Amino acid sequence: MKNFYYPQKVAVIGVSQNPTNLGRGIILNLRQAGYTGKIYPVGPRGGEIYGLRIYQHLRDLPEKVDLAAVLTPARFVPQVVADCGDLGITRVVVESGGFSELGEQGRELEKEIIRLIDRYNLRLIGPNGLGLINMEIGLSLPFSQLAPVPRRGNISVIAQSGGVGMHRIAWMTKEGLGLNKFLSLGNKLNVKENEALAYFLEDPGTEMIYLYLEGLEDGRGLLEVAKRATKPIFLQMPNVVPETSKIALSHTASLATDEKAVDAACRQGNIFRVLRQSDFLNAAKMVGQPPVKGNRLVILSRSGGEAVVGAYACKRYGFTLPPLAPALADFIHERSRSKIIKPGNPIDLGDIFDFQVYSQVMDHLCQDPEVDAVLLNYGPVYDPERAEARAMAQHLIKRSRESGKPLAISVCATLEEEDFFREDLGVPTFHFPGDAVRALSYSRDFALRPDPDDPGTDEPDFDEQEIAELLRTAAGNGFLPMPLALSLIEAAGIPVARWLAAANSEEALKAASQLGFPVVLKLAAPSLLHKTEAGGVILNLNDLPAVVAAYRRLAGLAAQHLPPGEAWEVVVMKQVSGGEEVLLGAQRDEAFGPLVACGAGGILTEILEDVALRVAPISRQEARKQILETRIGRILQGVRGRPAADLEALSRALAILSHLVDRFPQIKEVDLNPVRVFAGEEGISALDARIRLG
Amino acid sequence: MKNFYYPQKVAVIGVSQNPTNLGRGIILNLRQAGYTGKIYPVGPRGGEIYGLRIYQHLRDLPEKVDLAAVLTPARFVPQVVADCGDLGITRVVVESGGFSELGEQGRELEKEIIRLIDRYNLRLIGPNGLGLINMEIGLSLPFSQLAPVPRRGNISVIAQSGGVGMHRIAWMTKEGLGLNKFLSLGNKLNVKENEALAYFLEDPGTEMIYLYLEGLEDGRGLLEVAKRATKPIFLQMPNVVPETSKIALSHTASLATDEKAVDAACRQGNIFRVLRQSDFLNAAKMVGQPPVKGNRLVILSRSGGEAVVGAYACKRYGFTLPPLAPALADFIHERSRSKIIKPGNPIDLGDIFDFQVYSQVMDHLCQDPEVDAVLLNYGPVYDPERAEARAMAQHLIKRSRESGKPLAISVCATLEEEDFFREDLGVPTFHFPGDAVRALSYSRDFALRPDPDDPGTDEPDFDEQEIAELLRTAAGNGFLPMPLALSLIEAAGIPVARWLAAANSEEALKAASQLGFPVVLKLAAPSLLHKTEAGGVILNLNDLPAVVAAYRRLAGLAAQHLPPGEAWEVVVMKQVSGGEEVLLGAQRDEAFGPLVACGAGGILTEILEDVALRVAPISRQEARKQILETRIGRILQGVRGRPAADLEALSRALAILSHLVDRFPQIKEVDLNPVRVFAGEEGISALDARIRLG
Repeated sequence: MKNFYYPQKVAVIGVSQNPTNLGRGIILNLRQAGYTGKIYPVGPRGGEIYGLRIYQHLRDLPEKVDLAAVLTPARFVPQVVADCGDLGITRVVVESGGFSELGEQGRELEKEIIRLIDRYNLRLIGPNGLGLINMEIGLSLPFSQLAPVPRRGNISVIAQSGGVGMHRIAWMTKEGLGLNKFLSLGNKLNVKENEALAYFLEDPGTEMIYLYLEGLEDGRGLLEVAKRATKPIFLQMPNVVPETSKIALSHTASLATDEKAVDAACRQGNIFRVLRQSDFLNAAKMVGQPPVKGNRLVILSRSGGEAVVGAYACKRYGFTLPPLAPALADFIHERSRSKIIKPGNPIDLGDIFDFQVYSQVMDHLCQDPEVDAVLLNYGPVYDPERAEARAMAQHLIKRSRESGKPLAISVCATLEEEDFFREDLGVPTFHFPGDAVRALSYSRDFALRPDPDDPGTDEPDFDEQEIAELLRTAAGNGFLPMPLALSLIEAAGIPVARWLAAANSEEALKAASQLGFPVVLKLAAPSLLHKTEAGGVILNLNDLPAVVAAYRRLAGLAAQHLPPGEAWEVVVMKQVSGGEEVLLGAQRDEAFGPLVACGAGGILTEILEDVALRVAPISRQEARKQILETRIGRILQGVRGRPAADLEALSRALAILSHLVDRFPQIKEVDLNPVRVFAGEEGISALDARIRLG
Repeated sequence: MKNFYYPQKVAVIGVSQNPTNLGRGIILNLRQAGYTGKIYPVGPRGGEIYGLRIYQHLRDLPEKVDLAAVLTPARFVPQVVADCGDLGITRVVVESGGFSELGEQGRELEKEIIRLIDRYNLRLIGPNGLGLINMEIGLSLPFSQLAPVPRRGNISVIAQSGGVGMHRIAWMTKEGLGLNKFLSLGNKLNVKENEALAYFLEDPGTEMIYLYLEGLEDGRGLLEVAKRATKPIFLQMPNVVPETSKIALSHTASLATDEKAVDAACRQGNIFRVLRQSDFLNAAKMVGQPPVKGNRLVILSRSGGEAVVGAYACKRYGFTLPPLAPALADFIHERSRSKIIKPGNPIDLGDIFDFQVYSQVMDHLCQDPEVDAVLLNYGPVYDPERAEARAMAQHLIKRSRESGKPLAISVCATLEEEDFFREDLGVPTFHFPGDAVRALSYSRDFALRPDPDDPGTDEPDFDEQEIAELLRTAAGNGFLPMPLALSLIEAAGIPVARWLAAANSEEALKAASQLGFPVVLKLAAPSLLHKTEAGGVILNLNDLPAVVAAYRRLAGLAAQHLPPGEAWEVVVMKQVSGGEEVLLGAQRDEAFGPLVACGAGGILTEILEDVALRVAPISRQEARKQILETRIGRILQGVRGRPAADLEALSRALAILSHLVDRFPQIKEVDLNPVRVFAGEEGISALDARIRLG
């Protein structure tokens, strides 16, 4: 990747003197961004552009270039790529559109390009994108004009849609944020997001990464890269609902992925998911600031109102406002005009007109290890005091930098003042106190992020061979017969309530006697998915006559409701009582592969929407975190007089399930619902199991 | 209020030639806003300011003014107010600080001013505020400078904090939004938010109201005003958590109110609560646009990426993207270069370079009654096509205005383009598609707002006298004895499980026989609040010996755990089975008065956080809405094979409870937990009642 970003000689192919030629735009952007290397425009009609000769063919160039940017009509692109290969140019950026996003013909062109990439061992970005930018050397390859020219800074951007990328960069510039590198992925024939992300994570110029994606090439790979990240990653991934799917498909040939899976992966990979653009723009303002290493914030405010707004935001975003150190409180008290109010946090300096006091307060705060960050609500400021107020702000910024105490400034004054802060001081400048607190919270969440889970440290010891053999006995794809599903779960090491299969009523009686009363009878048949609703589960059988009657009822049900000829049997299960019902489940996502789920069990699963997901596999520790994300998980911890449930056993089962579906890709779906979780260390018991192969 | 906003002659008291004099700022603001009336500066040192003579005393003015703006030191304010009264000036705006927000001395000054207001029958705004603005006549009374000068428009602002108000107005201006009227409430000695709100709701120049409050003078009054509103009201009310309370108190002497109560009142009053400033700024851009009367949105986009972003926002904010009318789909298909993709919604016009097509598509959409609003993602635009693209946008805006079809424009191009839209076209211009969809959703939610509840149409027929008599039998304040609480609930018409009180074990036996088995025994004693946890509730008593044993256990419990000498008794209750457990409750809020609550019952109430609130009283219809806001409510409606529960009976009970606490202010708190709700039309049954008087 580095060779893409630091070329010393660049050819731009598809340039003409025609004023509507788009290739001109690339030359202009390179010029305006101050590219430090050599530029060679190429176009069949030759001529001159911005004082540079347009060569008619790549081979006419006086020297070999390091990178070729291509913007010819799609049908010519394969030939240009072949030319690059012949000339030993190994980095090619194709901006032309007209490929798979337009259908079959374009797909054929892409296949041809892929063959050329393989033949010449090239690396290629695009097609159907805006190429790349590296502000460190003024390398700006988009054909659409960057207005304003981006600031140089430490944020790097990967965007699947060039248009979205350009627009976001313009807003970064407007908000005073500096760009380091940009990549427009386009149709991702060769260079894809994970490789680019990994490069930016290593790149010394990049401190934060913004990722706009419409489809995931390899979600698990993304998660693995993100888990190793030591820089914050912000992901905007809007193509996660049916509404977006069709348009993304026609735009960048991307399939939708599941919103909940994206959220789960973001949680596991410490990725911040961007739901509002302003969240990213605010968070990005903390780049280059010392990290916020805790929850304790002090707000310094001249406007009492903005102090209230800031304090409310603290509550929303999980900051506390610790009381001031006594020495500081005394210091402020002595300088207050009214001398009535005991200074608290937020510090309302509304009645102190001496800006020296602000600076001295900041000096105190910078030395206080009990303060994790400072928010200054700057303003309102009256004309005669402007110069002094600005000097005060500059002093605060200086002190913050010297002492490593994070400082965010919300400019609650005229907009002119805000411009001064952003343009002249280059500090994190926020429009409203709430935005500042939100940004501080991102910095804190990144600084305090948990270590990523390593599921390999905690592999369950189930016998893979035994499970493989059980799977081989399955007749094919589709749902496993219930007895087989229960056996498989048991073999993996997840406790199941004691059960026996019965092919007739005699066997049922025998089974019941063997298990001991009370028992439950369940009708097991492939076409019967919702047993409870169908009446296929009969509870509270306390003696043999009841078992016989129940067996008959199930037989009747089978005769009436199952398709003719469908085989069925009955599972006799020991009825267990006590505990809470949860569900454990697994499914497969197009992008992320196997996922595991846990949540409130029984028939209320859907209505409570109380489910947490993880990309499998996970360790027991991660499983416990997952469980505690749900409401039922918090109930299991023990509430108001209820004993705590056996979370350890439940976490273990969830981790096992995650490894099971990871190692056996033929398992498409698992549903253990309900699983009873007992108090103390009394374990768990799965009462039902559905497993679908595919 | 109107006399405050349309004076023809204004005196400004507290002006001097001194460059640090704050009163000068008022004169300057009046000048810059183009005040159309006469300005009379007043200050004891006389002189001249901005070409105007400074009169030394109010009585020196050549004519009577309609309004006096006062910015003298606090100690002189009572005299100035008295002078106004003597001169027949009935509208006084006091901007000076140094009153109750600074403590006792200031409170005394305020009392003096209140006496003068009464004596002279004056109206007074402030003190400790920034006065008011009416952009219709250029009346701009804040002393701090407005930079930039606000645009004139249709949004009116009421702010308790002047600083917050000024800053928000600056941002409105920046975002292209026009101000109509502004009021800085300050310490609210005389003019308070509800009166101002009512005036703005009547005011022809105002189309939308933004309300920033730190404390509610009269929350119920606010709700009543809001219920009659035909204009959208946005309320920012950050002083709702302990973190904000102290600072708000020292700032504008406001007490915190409860966040959940504010949310409930907002729901009942169709008020939009502002949690992020950008939400209001976006929503306000729809002022003057036709209302969005439904959920069906069409997105028109040149950037496929921004179309995906917009479509995702639709999902978040409850819009659907209906398929295009066949004629329109055909029209676009014919004009597409690739002719491969069937046009859908979002309409991706990325491969159509003829801007005429956009206009023609808009013509189609404007005529389509199946389309409720249109979002145009404008851009990206290349230099040579700029003029044509802008002309297209102008045509779209024109067609939208002519046809009454709401149009929002997200400018996904250079920032220069956005400036052009905002400054030159004066249309709702959004930074990102998500912002535009959010704004459209506010317009829709207001257009489709439910009729406000009229609890008076549905008064329960309980016997007020009977209840008053029961309340009189209470020994004083504090918790009612359980039998009295149960009787009171029954008297109000809320069904309670059959029960009898027992003073000894013989009475308990008799009661059990009379009620029929199984029964429950409950220990009733004032100091025993959490009976279940304390072991004070014994269930499943199936025969007389079990009742005797249970009575003994409760007696033992009473002897062991109750304070010596505390009276206790036992309630024998028929044990009911079946149904779902909910809680119904009532409490009192400082600002909003009585509130009613419903939610998941039993001991899980807190952990599920599944409670909905309303300001009492409410009708049965409103109660049903309240219940259905909770998860338990949705479960009660019937899910996956479960029968629906008797929501009608539950709604009736909740409405009764709301009227009960409204009519009997001595009832401070009611807790009916659990209430069993049975299936079908089998009613409900309260199993416990706690009532606190005060």
